Amino acid sequence: MKQVICLVISVITLGVGNIIAQTHAVNVEDKIEAIISQLSLEEKVKMCHAQSKFSSPGVERLGIPELWMSDGPHGVRAEIAWDSWDYAGWTNDSCTAFPALTALASTFNPDLAYKYGVAIGQEARYRKKDILLGPGVNIYRTPLNGRNFEYLGEDPYLASVMSVPYIKGVQTNGVAACVKHFALNNQEVWRSHINVTLSDRALHEIYLPAFKAAVQEGEVWSVMGAYNKYNGQHTSHHEVLINQILKGDWSFDGVVVTDWGSAHDTKEAALNGLDIEMGTGTDGLTTSKENAYDYYYLAKPFLEMIRNGDIDESIVDDKVRRILRLMFRTNMDKSRPFGSKANAQHFEVAREVAQEGIVLLKNTKDFFPINPETEQTIAVIGENATRMMTVGGGSSELKTVYEISPLEGIQKRFVNANVIHTMGYASGPSQYGRVIPSSVDADSLKKAAIELAKKADLVLFVGGLNKNHEQDCENGDRKGLNLPFGQDELLNDIMDVNKNVGVILVSGNAVAMPWQEKAKAIVQTWYLGSEAGYALADILSGDVNPSGKLPFSFPVKLEDNGAHAFDALSYPGDGINQVYKEDILVGYRWHDTKNIKPLFAFGHGLSYTTFKVNNIVADNTSYNNGDVVKLSVVISNVGKVRGAEVLQVYVHDEKSSVMRPAKELKAFSKVNLEAGERKTVELSLPVDSFAFYDEEINDWNLEKGVYQLMIGTASNNIKKTIKVNID
Amino acid sequence: MKQVICLVISVITLGVGNIIAQTHAVNVEDKIEAIISQLSLEEKVKMCHAQSKFSSPGVERLGIPELWMSDGPHGVRAEIAWDSWDYAGWTNDSCTAFPALTALASTFNPDLAYKYGVAIGQEARYRKKDILLGPGVNIYRTPLNGRNFEYLGEDPYLASVMSVPYIKGVQTNGVAACVKHFALNNQEVWRSHINVTLSDRALHEIYLPAFKAAVQEGEVWSVMGAYNKYNGQHTSHHEVLINQILKGDWSFDGVVVTDWGSAHDTKEAALNGLDIEMGTGTDGLTTSKENAYDYYYLAKPFLEMIRNGDIDESIVDDKVRRILRLMFRTNMDKSRPFGSKANAQHFEVAREVAQEGIVLLKNTKDFFPINPETEQTIAVIGENATRMMTVGGGSSELKTVYEISPLEGIQKRFVNANVIHTMGYASGPSQYGRVIPSSVDADSLKKAAIELAKKADLVLFVGGLNKNHEQDCENGDRKGLNLPFGQDELLNDIMDVNKNVGVILVSGNAVAMPWQEKAKAIVQTWYLGSEAGYALADILSGDVNPSGKLPFSFPVKLEDNGAHAFDALSYPGDGINQVYKEDILVGYRWHDTKNIKPLFAFGHGLSYTTFKVNNIVADNTSYNNGDVVKLSVVISNVGKVRGAEVLQVYVHDEKSSVMRPAKELKAFSKVNLEAGERKTVELSLPVDSFAFYDEEINDWNLEKGVYQLMIGTASNNIKKTIKVNID
Repeated sequence: MKQVICLVISVITLGVGNIIAQTHAVNVEDKIEAIISQLSLEEKVKMCHAQSKFSSPGVERLGIPELWMSDGPHGVRAEIAWDSWDYAGWTNDSCTAFPALTALASTFNPDLAYKYGVAIGQEARYRKKDILLGPGVNIYRTPLNGRNFEYLGEDPYLASVMSVPYIKGVQTNGVAACVKHFALNNQEVWRSHINVTLSDRALHEIYLPAFKAAVQEGEVWSVMGAYNKYNGQHTSHHEVLINQILKGDWSFDGVVVTDWGSAHDTKEAALNGLDIEMGTGTDGLTTSKENAYDYYYLAKPFLEMIRNGDIDESIVDDKVRRILRLMFRTNMDKSRPFGSKANAQHFEVAREVAQEGIVLLKNTKDFFPINPETEQTIAVIGENATRMMTVGGGSSELKTVYEISPLEGIQKRFVNANVIHTMGYASGPSQYGRVIPSSVDADSLKKAAIELAKKADLVLFVGGLNKNHEQDCENGDRKGLNLPFGQDELLNDIMDVNKNVGVILVSGNAVAMPWQEKAKAIVQTWYLGSEAGYALADILSGDVNPSGKLPFSFPVKLEDNGAHAFDALSYPGDGINQVYKEDILVGYRWHDTKNIKPLFAFGHGLSYTTFKVNNIVADNTSYNNGDVVKLSVVISNVGKVRGAEVLQVYVHDEKSSVMRPAKELKAFSKVNLEAGERKTVELSLPVDSFAFYDEEINDWNLEKGVYQLMIGTASNNIKKTIKVNID
Repeated sequence: MKQVICLVISVITLGVGNIIAQTHAVNVEDKIEAIISQLSLEEKVKMCHAQSKFSSPGVERLGIPELWMSDGPHGVRAEIAWDSWDYAGWTNDSCTAFPALTALASTFNPDLAYKYGVAIGQEARYRKKDILLGPGVNIYRTPLNGRNFEYLGEDPYLASVMSVPYIKGVQTNGVAACVKHFALNNQEVWRSHINVTLSDRALHEIYLPAFKAAVQEGEVWSVMGAYNKYNGQHTSHHEVLINQILKGDWSFDGVVVTDWGSAHDTKEAALNGLDIEMGTGTDGLTTSKENAYDYYYLAKPFLEMIRNGDIDESIVDDKVRRILRLMFRTNMDKSRPFGSKANAQHFEVAREVAQEGIVLLKNTKDFFPINPETEQTIAVIGENATRMMTVGGGSSELKTVYEISPLEGIQKRFVNANVIHTMGYASGPSQYGRVIPSSVDADSLKKAAIELAKKADLVLFVGGLNKNHEQDCENGDRKGLNLPFGQDELLNDIMDVNKNVGVILVSGNAVAMPWQEKAKAIVQTWYLGSEAGYALADILSGDVNPSGKLPFSFPVKLEDNGAHAFDALSYPGDGINQVYKEDILVGYRWHDTKNIKPLFAFGHGLSYTTFKVNNIVADNTSYNNGDVVKLSVVISNVGKVRGAEVLQVYVHDEKSSVMRPAKELKAFSKVNLEAGERKTVELSLPVDSFAFYDEEINDWNLEKGVYQLMIGTASNNIKKTIKVNID
């Protein structure tokens, strides 16, 4: 039956597409202004604060989308309930757990950082997230900071070089990266209120460069404020940090988001550059049926102050302009790809980063690699051999499709060996507020471990820290440098009964190693995510030659770290204030300048092969402002297996009007070499990067004179020093 | 500090965009085949069933998105929990409640249906829904069907003409409409298992045309199966309905989705055209940790049968092909707009539909309009004056930004009147399973109403049905034709004390009106959504001249309806089987053919002005197959206010080899006229539409002979009959 249906097309002209069409605007900034001119004050204010735990409103009448955000830096977090911290119970939200960022930093491989960014951005995009809350680039000041595992180490140059490609990779997906936590959130103790003071020089030379690179080179689309104060003002709405430096000097044109609940004042939030307030108060803040989000600092109180004339409407316009700009880059960019999730390629990226991030700290008499063909008994001892490390740790906790434990990885690779396992110790009941049962007795665990060690040809001790509160976990710091849960004693006892002990440390922080001399070998593995056990087995078996380098120094004892060389006001502060007394001498800058030998130095990391470095020459002897020093280095793999070495160039100004550190990293290059292969590598150093931040002029100052360029394979393994003149 | 960051861009080639790029496919069908060739069997099977209450999986590794669906036909439902029927508790999910579809049908205005579709599609799109589960086009067979309010009335032509532009409108947003419930879900009692049998002729002439129009003219992208059986097989996986008719004869190239839980057999689901299974079983189906969705008929059991060779892999390929095709039309169409939600334009569309949908059934001595300038006492009596009608009713329940009650609308418009209100009756405690408190006593409510009526100059009784179980509500039918909750008695008593009673019925079904003679005026308002009270006041005040026409007949008593003129096997069936004994004589076809006068006829609806219809001529006297009869009609508004009239053309074959109904609607046109204005209207009738479905040849048959074309303004108000020959 054929029917004629007479239809007069009467179009409803609605939606942002039509608004834009109406204005005939072609460029994004014009489109943004056209939209702003259509918005009511209430709509503009609404865009400046959360509507749920992880979303902020758009303008529904005009079709301006909501913004959806997600933790975190090393995987896209499981879905959270609308208005509580419970998980939402979805089943489509398991992810690829990538290695935590300390592992990425240890690769010293920016190409891998880009791949990592692309892959995690694809996962965020597939999950319909517009902002991925990472990377974290806070500088590793103290090994006690519970959140160091999320960051990129102690060196501002390394953190910059590694964060920029991560950001670019994420943003290729039309997903905004959100560099965090801006700034000076270098400890978790008292993070919500501690007032940090430090020299302008330390601020600019140590704590800000990674953020600056993220903005100026990574062109990051959003920045997250921090919880702490700086010079008496909360950093999430800070006149100097945000208005003057970030949005002023650096010309950041994106969005500043709070950390969750880090806003504390409407007028400051309004005037000091905060654009979106998230997480302040939750269900239960108000007892009435009214929406708790209406009481955010940037909600009704903000609206009232604009209405009263206390705040000019141009202030909210600027915030909305930035939010819309971010939207045109993300959820209003129709060309953005669809993303993808938890596929073989992503797990491969995770494994590559894990392989290249693992650092071989010590390897007496080629203890590693262990030949997988050998029939022998391997005792794997330690709780971390089986413990899930994607769970816990705070907001970076992940629900991964799978996580291969170290034990599983070892068992699968060493099929010819008799792999036996016991826990050895137990970490106890507390896991970030959740109680896990502890029915085991420390003595019997230890006893069983010693018995196992006696039976074995070799012992792999898999210990370290974990993601519990006061370990590597948000919202608390470690209580000391030593390994917890009796591991030092246990290791000593094991080493007494078995001389072939290799120690595998799973942690995001440096630990003391009183047993170091007795260990045959030590491997630092970080938190490696989904592929942890496979990547570890790749290294232990020699399938992959280790090439990771330490992104921070391991001190012998806590007091050898600059932050801990002073009184409690330096760390953790007096409960109200804190002074960074080590100033610019963070990490290896402290060790090398003060001649305090570290246990393991920044940039250190062994290989199963041997590299020779020679023919190191600079392209010139004298340089001017704006010039680039080009160093040529010949590197050869003189061992028997392929491997990779990281050439590192440190700079020192021989004579300066101010104190200069003994060494500062200014260039590095990771070189892959087949056995017997030789390459000529060129490293570029812009001489402007040799400048110091001069508090006299409040600017960078490149003084003339002789600079030493120290080329080596670790901060404590310099092969040659070249002197150049800056005229 | 300027830093040079050396970044070698190494792209990860992932995601569906890249798969497509790799194949260099330009046309969508080629792209689809390229994707299918990349999918594992498990991935293909996964796409064929739900992963949560309202979503089905994509292929995350390739970036093929998930599909998200939402109820319902007259507004986008609030967010539902992942795996229970609880609401998710979001606060961004309130919507514009559009009038339920009976109201849309009553407008006889396809342009409005298009606007409605565009607007609701925009709301679905803004809410990130890919499929909107509507419209419902099941034919109004009995006034007891609890879900009639969601449908488009009793006439297959009207339902077709109104559903097509709705579908087209929705789909302009890159959101699939989903026409439902296919087919023969004409009652809610025993809906999950009742086995419907009827003649092929009734199937094709009455129950399928709206679906056919949706597919062939609306080009709908998805179709939902029904719960019931037809000829012994469940309709959601039906050899004849889906394979032969829908996908065969009609060449439907989209996706067939179950109603929620309407699949019952893996092999039938696989082989009989079901593409996506939703809602079968919920949390609690399995006690293990395993995902209940894995046990869907189109999940593991389907996978196993393909692996065993019981089902060919080409079967799942066809389903995936259809799903991907739908995706390329929706969430993989990058050009689709952003949508918008709950804006002034949408509420305006809702109000327009409500205004044009309200039907003035009776209006003695110009009772309506009521002059808003008059200072008088208006008693508004009845629970429905204040009851929210967007709540309840089943899956079409909405969380609307606001809903203006009839009382509120009247109060706001009649500011010069003294508007007083009392409930009069209470509907009792049950509201679709939820208990609402009932502390009121029927007698005292009635007494108060009578006292109020005595005091008033006029009474507006606002009653009817509501969205409770066994009223206008899914999953149950009404128990009789009369008004519930003692309204008939109450109305009689009120009319005894006040002669000026206007009755305003809120319902989605016909009701008996034993008090009809005594009512001064009667208005049928349907469920009007957000703007209900405003639209009602527009009509009552005369701001808008009513122009709605009944989309179904109101019988005097239940037995006057064809479905109820036989034994219980005709309605509701014997619990297992049901036979549609009235055959093709549904609605006015029954009344007019059997000469049973309705209380109010199909197509009936009064105006505040008077229209004259004359000069009705056809462009010819004889026509052949494929010709179109063009009728010219002159219509004049001879009253004092602007208004709209619906010209209706009914056809009757004077002499046929089979019984033909007395009248069948084959064309209509809504005409707007200013006071005093005259227009010449042309109506087109393809003569092929005069055919009947001939069971002898299993095809449509256009017999030669004389056909009557009856032109009028209601099925019982024919102005002129023209005879034409079909040669």
